Amino acid sequence: MQAGKPILYSYFRSSCSWRVRIALALKSIDYETIPINLIKDGGQQFSEEFQKLNPMKQVPALKIDGTTIGQSLAIIEYLEETRPTPRLLPQDPKKRAHVRMISDLIASGIQPLQNLSVLKEVGQENQLTWAQEAINFGFNALEHILQTTAGKYCVGNEVSMADLCLVPQVANAERFKVDLTPYPTISRINKSLLALEAFQVSHPCRQPDTPPELRA
Amino acid sequence: MQAGKPILYSYFRSSCSWRVRIALALKSIDYETIPINLIKDGGQQFSEEFQKLNPMKQVPALKIDGTTIGQSLAIIEYLEETRPTPRLLPQDPKKRAHVRMISDLIASGIQPLQNLSVLKEVGQENQLTWAQEAINFGFNALEHILQTTAGKYCVGNEVSMADLCLVPQVANAERFKVDLTPYPTISRINKSLLALEAFQVSHPCRQPDTPPELRA
Repeated sequence: MQAGKPILYSYFRSSCSWRVRIALALKSIDYETIPINLIKDGGQQFSEEFQKLNPMKQVPALKIDGTTIGQSLAIIEYLEETRPTPRLLPQDPKKRAHVRMISDLIASGIQPLQNLSVLKEVGQENQLTWAQEAINFGFNALEHILQTTAGKYCVGNEVSMADLCLVPQVANAERFKVDLTPYPTISRINKSLLALEAFQVSHPCRQPDTPPELRA
Repeated sequence: MQAGKPILYSYFRSSCSWRVRIALALKSIDYETIPINLIKDGGQQFSEEFQKLNPMKQVPALKIDGTTIGQSLAIIEYLEETRPTPRLLPQDPKKRAHVRMISDLIASGIQPLQNLSVLKEVGQENQLTWAQEAINFGFNALEHILQTTAGKYCVGNEVSMADLCLVPQVANAERFKVDLTPYPTISRINKSLLALEAFQVSHPCRQPDTPPELRA
C-alpha cells in the first residue's frame, strides 16, 4: 500500500464532489483530481474500471491511506477523524447532532431526489418541476431549522460539515431556477460562505475538468 | 429542560424509524414511543404540532437530553457519542469509514428513492418498478462492497450502524417483491442479524402502533 497523495474522483458539477473538495481545501490536504465525466461516453462512472473503485457508480470517491471511500459524508467524517484540524464538527454532542441532522437533510432528503440519474427517469418535460419541488420541500424545513441553529453559519459561528452541504445544494437550486426569496437565512449563510477561499477554490467553475465556457 | 425518558416519534413500518429502534434496543435505552401514522388523517407527520418538532415532516425524530434530533443516522451518531456501549462504530478509522459508507449508500442512495412520498409522485402504476429499480441498483453495489468488508456482519464480526440500515432495507426489498437471489451476502447477513434480540423487539410487527392483523 502506497501512501502518496490522495486521489479524488470528481466531476466539476457534482454537488456531492464539491462537498468533499471544500473539506479538502479547509483542511489544506494536497490531492490529485481524476475527473469522471458523468455525461461523456454515456457516463464514465459506468466504466468497468471505475465500478471497481466505487460499485455505486457515483462520484465522489476518495483514494486515501490505502483505501477507497465512497459517499461524500463518509469521506468527510473520515477526514475529520484522521485530519482533525480545523474541525468540521463542533465539540458539543448536541451541536454535532445538529450539524449531522442538517447534513443528512440535504444528503438524504434533497440531493438524491434531484440528481442526474433520477431526473433521467422522470423524463425531460417533468424534470424542472420535480427538482424544484424536492428542493423547495427540503429548503422549507431547512430554513426553519436554521432559525434555531444558525449563527454566522449553519450551526453557530464555525464552518461545519453542514455548510459543506449547504453551498453546493444552493448552487443546484439556482441551476434549477428555484426562487430563493422565501429562504433568507439559507441565502445569508450561503453568501457568507461563498466569500471564504475554501469555497472558492473548490467551486465548479474552477476545476481541472470545468469546460472553458463555464470557467470563472 | 426536563431529562425524563427519551421520546421516539416513530411509525411501525418506517425503515428509518426501525434503524433507530435497533440502536435504542442494542444500547438498552429505555424510551417511550409516540406513533406518527404516515397514512391516517392524510399523514400525521403533516400536523402543525409535529412539524414544530421536525420541519422535515418525517419520522423518526428523537426527543432526548432536552433537544430534538431528526434524521436517523444523525440520531444514531448522537446515541453513539453519548451512550457509547455497546459501540456501533468500530475503533479503526478505515473500518468506521466503511460502516458510514454502507450506511450512507442505503440512507442516501436507496431509501429516499423508494419512500412513500416519492412513490406517490411516481404514480400508482409505476411504483413497483421504480422501487425495484432503486433497490436493485443499490443492492448490486452493496453486494460487491460487502464481499470485501463483511465478516459475520456488514463490517467484520461486530454489529455496526451499517447493519442497522441493512435489515430495514431488506424488509423494504421484500415488501416490493425484489428477488434477493443475486445478493447472497446481503441475505446471509440479514438472516444472522434477524436472529438477534435487538432486531426482533424493534421489528415492525412488534410495535405499539402495529395493526393487529400485522402483529407477530
